[in-house]
This record gives sequence, C-alpha cells and structure tokens, in this order.
Amino acid sequence: MLRLNTTDTGFAEAFDILVGARRESDAGVAADVSRILADVKAGGDAVLRELTQKFDRFDLDSNGWQISAAQCAAAYAALEPDLRDALDLAAQRITSYHQAQLPENRDYRDDQGVRLGAKWNGVDAAGLYVPGGRAAYPSSVLMNAIPAKVAGVGRLVMVTPTPDGEVNQTVLAAAHIAGVDEIWRVGGAQAVAALAYGTEKIAPVDVITGPGNAWVAEAKRQLYGVVGIDMVAGPSEIVVVADGQNDPEWTAADLLSQAEHDLTSQSILFTDDAAFADAVTKSVDVQIAALSTGKVAGASWRDHGAVIVTDSLESAMPLVNLLAAEHVELATDMNRAEALFAAIRHAGSVFLGRHTPEAIGDYVAGPNHVLPTGRRARFASGLSVLDFMKRTSFIALDEDSVRKIGPAAARLADAEGLPAHAASVRKRLK
Amino acid sequence: MLRLNTTDTGFAEAFDILVGARRESDAGVAADVSRILADVKAGGDAVLRELTQKFDRFDLDSNGWQISAAQCAAAYAALEPDLRDALDLAAQRITSYHQAQLPENRDYRDDQGVRLGAKWNGVDAAGLYVPGGRAAYPSSVLMNAIPAKVAGVGRLVMVTPTPDGEVNQTVLAAAHIAGVDEIWRVGGAQAVAALAYGTEKIAPVDVITGPGNAWVAEAKRQLYGVVGIDMVAGPSEIVVVADGQNDPEWTAADLLSQAEHDLTSQSILFTDDAAFADAVTKSVDVQIAALSTGKVAGASWRDHGAVIVTDSLESAMPLVNLLAAEHVELATDMNRAEALFAAIRHAGSVFLGRHTPEAIGDYVAGPNHVLPTGRRARFASGLSVLDFMKRTSFIALDEDSVRKIGPAAARLADAEGLPAHAASVRKRLK
Repeated sequence: MLRLNTTDTGFAEAFDILVGARRESDAGVAADVSRILADVKAGGDAVLRELTQKFDRFDLDSNGWQISAAQCAAAYAALEPDLRDALDLAAQRITSYHQAQLPENRDYRDDQGVRLGAKWNGVDAAGLYVPGGRAAYPSSVLMNAIPAKVAGVGRLVMVTPTPDGEVNQTVLAAAHIAGVDEIWRVGGAQAVAALAYGTEKIAPVDVITGPGNAWVAEAKRQLYGVVGIDMVAGPSEIVVVADGQNDPEWTAADLLSQAEHDLTSQSILFTDDAAFADAVTKSVDVQIAALSTGKVAGASWRDHGAVIVTDSLESAMPLVNLLAAEHVELATDMNRAEALFAAIRHAGSVFLGRHTPEAIGDYVAGPNHVLPTGRRARFASGLSVLDFMKRTSFIALDEDSVRKIGPAAARLADAEGLPAHAASVRKRLK
Repeated sequence: MLRLNTTDTGFAEAFDILVGARRESDAGVAADVSRILADVKAGGDAVLRELTQKFDRFDLDSNGWQISAAQCAAAYAALEPDLRDALDLAAQRITSYHQAQLPENRDYRDDQGVRLGAKWNGVDAAGLYVPGGRAAYPSSVLMNAIPAKVAGVGRLVMVTPTPDGEVNQTVLAAAHIAGVDEIWRVGGAQAVAALAYGTEKIAPVDVITGPGNAWVAEAKRQLYGVVGIDMVAGPSEIVVVADGQNDPEWTAADLLSQAEHDLTSQSILFTDDAAFADAVTKSVDVQIAALSTGKVAGASWRDHGAVIVTDSLESAMPLVNLLAAEHVELATDMNRAEALFAAIRHAGSVFLGRHTPEAIGDYVAGPNHVLPTGRRARFASGLSVLDFMKRTSFIALDEDSVRKIGPAAARLADAEGLPAHAASVRKRLK
C-alpha cells in the first residue's frame, strides 16, 4: 500500500505514476482469439462442440446445448426465501431506474418549416455473456439483462460455460427473473463468435454485453463493428474521499469491498485527516485477517492500494478527476458531499454521504453496476438502456422548405465536387 | 445493376446474397497499423515527423506542425460570399439540431427515500480526423466538430495530412466556423496514435471521430478502449422507396448521389411500379454520362446497384429493415411516407416525402451525416452529442434508507461469496 501526502516532495511524480499504472494485462491472446473467431465463423456448431469438449469437458450433443426456461423457473422456485426476496427487490429497483432512462423520441418543425426528429428503437436481439465458476454473479445477470429488456430487445440470449456440467443455480434464477429467452452452454471466445456470426443452432445477435476473462474481452473487442459491444472492461477500482468524522471500520470495509474482487483491483483513500488515515489502515489489516477473501483482498491492497492525505477534501477533487475511477465515495455530511460532487467531472458512479457504501450500488440501488474502469470514465458511461437501442434521425421537407435550404446544400455539394448531390437538390428547386 | 422482382423464383436467395454482400475490404492493414501505433507510442514527435516526411513529403519541423487560427480565419474571410453563407447556414442548423439533443441530468428520490440520478459531462478533449486531398469535406468538419462543441468539449483538436503542403481552404474555413482549437498537419494511423497516446507536442484526447482511409479506420478500431471512438465506418448506401408518382429523374439523381461517393457505395431502389423502375434506370444511364463523377458512379451502380419491384411499398418494409441502410428515402405523399416510416426499425436516417433528397441531410438539414453503414443501423446510431459526453450515476442513502434496502444487498453479497461487500453494508445497519 502506497501512502502519500500532497505536501511530500515528489508527490506530483508519485501521483502521476499511480494514475498511469497499467493494471490490466492483455495476456497476448489476440492471435488465439482471432483464430477461434475464424474457426467458429467457418465451422459453426461443430467447432463449438469441439471447443466445449476441450475447454469445459462437456459434450453438448450428448448432454444438451441449452438450459431450459423450466430449469430456470425451478432454480428460482428452489431459492431460499430471503435470497429470492433480495433478488426480486434488486430486479425491481434496477428495472425502475432503467425505465426512467428510456430516451424520448423527437419530432419538431423549425422556423424554416423543416420537420426534423429522431426515433429510438431497441435492437432485435442481444447476447449476454455470463462467466462460469466463481465469477458467475447473479447480480451481473440482472444488471445486463434488465436494461436490454427495458430497451425493448425482442430476443435476449445468454451464453455461459458449464465446465464439467456445473451450473450456478442462482444465476439461472436471475435469468428467470430477468426474462432471458435462450441459454446456451457455451463459453469463451467461441461463444462470443457464435453470438456475433450465428451458427446453425444459434441465431446471431446485434449487441453483446457481459463480463468475461481475457479471451472473452478480446473476442468482443475484435468483433466491435460486426456487433455492438459494451465498453472494454479493465480492472475495477474505488476511490473513497472521507473526512475524519467517519467510522474508520466502515471506510476500511468499503476499501476492502473493492480489493476482494481481484488481485488487480485498486482501492484508494483520500482524507484530510492523517490520524483517520492511520486508523483506517489499521482496521484494513484487522479485517483482512478475518475475511475468507482475505488473500485476494490483502494482495490487491498491498500492490495497488493507496492512502493519500490532502490539505482539504476540496483540494483532492482535481486528483480524483485525474483518476476517473469506476466508483467514488464521498463520505462526508450530505451538504459537503453535494459540494464535492459538483467538482467531479470524471467517475463511473458516485456514492454520496456516510451511509452509502459502494456495495449498495453493486446490488440493489438501481443504477447499473457495469461501469467504466481503468480511467475510462474520462470518455465512457455505465451500461444503460442506450446500449441496447439505436436512433434513426429523420428529415421531411416540402416544396417550400426545400426552396429555402436547398440552394445552400447544392452550393456546398459544388464545393465538394459532388455534382449528383447538387443535381438531386436542384432538380427539386425548378 | 441487379434487377429483382419479389415474385421471381429464387428472389429470397438473391435478396439474401444482396444483404450479405460484403463491400468492405480490411485491406490487410492490421499488422502495419499496430506497428505504427507502437512506434508513435514509443517515439512520439520524432516518429510523427519521420512518417509525415515519408507519406506526405512534408517536413513538420521546417514547415510548421500546426495550422493557426489566423490561417483558418483568413480562409473563412476569403470564401466566396455564397459559399460562406451556405457554410454558415449549415453550421447554424447543425448547431440547433444538436443542442436539442443534449441529455437531461436526473435527480430524484424514490419511494424508499433513496436518492438516485445521473449527471452528464462533456469529455475534456476530442480529436477530429480530417482526410487530405479529394476526401477532405468541409461538411464533415462541421458534422464532427459542432456536436463536440455543443457537448461542452473543452479542447477540440483536428489532425489532417497536408501532402506536399497542400491545404484545403474550405476545410480551414469550416474549422474556423466550428471553433476547432488546434490543427496538426499529421495524418494516417500515426495521427490517430498521437491523439490517443499524446506526444511531446500533442496532448492526448479522450474521444476520436472522423472519417479516414483503411489505416485510419483500423487505428481507431485498435485504440477502442484507450479512447472512445465513433462507430466503425464501412461503405455507405442509400435505399430509395418510391411509388410511380415520382419524377424518375429525381429518383435517378438520388440514387446517383450515393453512387458517386465511392466504388463500394450502394444504391437500391424499391418500387411497386415496374414501368417507373424502367424509367429510373434509363435516367440513371443518361445522367451518368453527363456527370464529372460518372466513372465512379457508373461502376458503383453497375457493381452494387439494385432495383427491386415489389407488390406494394408496404411489403418492401421488412426487406428495407433487413438492409438496415445508412439512408432511406420514402418518396411518396407525406401521409403514406409517415405510415411507411412507422414500419422502419433499422435505418441510419430517413428522408420523408418526394421533396427531401438525401443530399439535404449531407449538408444543411441539421441531423448528423455521420451514420451507421454496412448494416450497422441494426445496433448503431448516427454521431451525436452523446458521443462526446459521458454519464456519472449517483446514489445517496441516509440512515433510514440504508436500513430498508441494505439487508438485501448484504444477502446477495453473501450468495456471491463476497464478505467484504456484505460487511461494508452490515456495519451501517447496526
């Protein structure tokens, strides 16, 4: 864990290194992935079957290609009641937040009598990648599937590897709640290729979202343009901005909630109170020792954690913007949190006040937990209904309005050396 | 030119081939581009200078790296008055359409007392690629730069190659109107790399848009995730849906306005009137002979053009959706055009009625002319202010509301095996 004070000599250099540190590895999988994509495009289901046998030790032809809606409904029915209630509450709150996100169509006539507008439609079909094993999170199923459904996507297809046949029942229950239409037992780059190109069994989709390992991420990157994808995902991070009035145990737990995700996760604390910083780091160590995820959390905190003491929380805000973190907590009284938030330009999601731990946003608050990582909040947004929709603009002129704005269009076409453009307008001006 | 009738035997197969035809070539430039990106990342300005000397025969150090604001202002002042007026009208109409596109922030409290919302910000800096030579279109400068400025982008950087020192004065005038902040005389994949990574002279940007050749397009694709980019661009196309009441000359000119762009452009006519189809194709041939761009237009029409006669215009709509074209004209009376438009799910931009040639949308109507091509309207939208903005979601709980929704979050964290997530919530419930 790195400890800095803005008054240190060399702070600027040390902070630059922190901002620039590259925690993601591309794992050199590009060539592998590009071969798998070509193989699936050419060989379809036979290649899917072969690769699934090889990587997941699962024979699709003998044991079934799909998980049925009935299996998902059964998994839902078999949930412990409190877990079922929690998933239902999460689904309901995520649905309501994303419904409020639906964009409005536009249709207006301007002062030249030109009618202009834009109409939004959901895509026809979306694919959702769900990792197998430990990384299969039911919350991610809800966070990816619900915005697609709210956007009006007609066909929502899930792909997930089932190594040795193993299936995560809570993931199936989440798929049931979210209304996933098809589930295919395939994973890896081959599953992404099947969704993008289609195979004999699996019809192609228009947009692919969802988390995955390096192969899955690279497959999505290579298929960008063939289909729509969500933002490239990197290691995640949290920045906690806290004054000395917080309970150090709470702040330490918040830092660890990010650190326990992955060895490459990053947790950073900004505070204007050095004694509070000491208390938090002490509590982090105590809590790590008691966590079942302590090994991962401890390594992440050791290698990527940072505690930065600043003159004031306000003066930390430009540094927070440079980090453009996935999650930013502003743990102060609400009025001050509001004022700090007004200074934030780059962040995936912000958690205001002392009573809003980031983990609330992972599960039940309502906003999406798929957020830009690795400084991408400079230019990218969290997943939303817009990722599953597209806009068609429209223009309507009549005999009068084409005479008003047509001559300028023809003149510009002349200047660009495009005579057929000019002619298509001028013929209508006669 | 392909002529089909929906009643032909084998129509379905022929139409499938038309939809599936791949007009874009990747030109095998991926390896070249990836080396150039790595070289610029490592070598900065020295590499830019070397490559610019090699490809553009232009010495940046001797002749200047930048084009100044004064040069742009002078280019604007020197324009022929009618061209200046046309550019001004276009800029004003594009600005007004894109201002109406600005998204609204959200901030509300739900029935559990949880405050939720989303705040939009423009990116700090955007880069705009402008091709050199024949493909330098002032209209593209306006269409890319104005949405960025309307989005609130602080620093708008243009890069453009100036082979042998040649500069397009109308492009400079457009940059002046649009308020471009910096112009660098570099092009190709090396210019895209400089924008993404930054060099000693050129500060990095957050989003890169603008058209370019295969090297530029591949550079943007490879840098997706390092920066934001606009959609991958392919060969463009127009679909004209016209009844027999149109002037065949107008319809022919509209088809040619697409065909004259490029050898890989595609123009397709749907009509329910075979005699009208004959008249249009006759007029296409007559007009091609008289066009200075006739060679390109003729080859595009010959290789990729199509005329499809359908039972009714209404029955053409499912076929039009399969094509998911960049531009769709609905050349009928306005009432019928409205009804046809209601059936369109996939299109970049739609032009309603007989008096709305597509070229109006290229220049002065207001909506963006950067639109999804190559069937990407299935999942992608035209360029908008949203491409230069990003959304930060936010969540604020108090002591009461965290007690209401916190337990469900902790229960889900338990189910996902993330104890620090659960602890960060439960510590606040005590």
